[in-house]
Amino acid sequence: MPYIDTKNEIAGIRGLMQFRPEVAVVLNQLAQVLLAEEASLSKRDRELIASFVSSRNNCTFCMTSHGAIAAHLPEGNQALVEAIWNDYKTAPIDDKLKALLQIADKVAKGGLHVTHGDIAAAKDTGASDMDIHDTVLIAATFCMFNRYLDGLGATTPDDPGFYEIIGKQRAAEGYLTKSVLIKD
Amino acid sequence: MPYIDTKNEIAGIRGLMQFRPEVAVVLNQLAQVLLAEEASLSKRDRELIASFVSSRNNCTFCMTSHGAIAAHLPEGNQALVEAIWNDYKTAPIDDKLKALLQIADKVAKGGLHVTHGDIAAAKDTGASDMDIHDTVLIAATFCMFNRYLDGLGATTPDDPGFYEIIGKQRAAEGYLTKSVLIKD
Repeated sequence: MPYIDTKNEIAGIRGLMQFRPEVAVVLNQLAQVLLAEEASLSKRDRELIASFVSSRNNCTFCMTSHGAIAAHLPEGNQALVEAIWNDYKTAPIDDKLKALLQIADKVAKGGLHVTHGDIAAAKDTGASDMDIHDTVLIAATFCMFNRYLDGLGATTPDDPGFYEIIGKQRAAEGYLTKSVLIKD
Repeated sequence: MPYIDTKNEIAGIRGLMQFRPEVAVVLNQLAQVLLAEEASLSKRDRELIASFVSSRNNCTFCMTSHGAIAAHLPEGNQALVEAIWNDYKTAPIDDKLKALLQIADKVAKGGLHVTHGDIAAAKDTGASDMDIHDTVLIAATFCMFNRYLDGLGATTPDDPGFYEIIGKQRAAEGYLTKSVLIKD
């Protein structure tokens, strides 16, 4: 149960969003533009970055739900998601994504941890300026979402089936459908 | 100079935003709804929370600019901003804002650092559920903005006059005016 009375029983971030719908609209738009619109990185890779950063921040809700979304996108699967949680350096992903996850890992610690060397290593694997930009901003954004949920003690279901539904739904619909937005 | 070629010479977050205008629009809307629209907390207090969290994350650009904005809002001044950077517990602010800054400080470390005791202490000073919600989300959001800027090595001017202009402009106009938005 959240630390505040949200006047609803909805689990996870949607329970908090229902409490403050003016903000919910913008937070969903942010998730949509960063994760679900076309971009230089694939949707799968962007969701993997989101899930990875959330695992670094020990945010079970975001880590599990965005992992499930990544698993439901093309070339995604749950074993891959878990391999990245455990050790992205040995996970079955290409060198570019590994270099981007290294940047995301630094961003999770703090922006000033990122070095010229991290950026150069990513560029050596073929990462574009846009890939790097989006990696940093997605990682930073999940440092926000993770803190929003856990800082308010949002309800985090244990049932894997809960995240399976989120995974399917978001992978198919993105973040601006009626099942996400609060205002009709 | 940023780690990526942003194709512009604009300092701070606006240089990054110009590189990715689809995202910039949403980030400015988020700042607007959290900091500049009507809410249970005053605009000054919300900008103080933003500046305080940025100081905890050692993000000079955000700390200085949002400090300057707070200083230009009613009942704000630069000495107060600096007192909060130095030690909010002894700064000349009321107990409610001190308790909210304690929550913001925990959020900066990570969402799971916030305890029932922190929340109860804030409620004891009269903080509402909405005050606590907005404090957590503003703190979390600046953990994002700070990481976005420093993770991409955004240019951070030394000239105090630069931040003075930002402070005056944002305090008067909010975050959605033409001087902030990228798209005409």
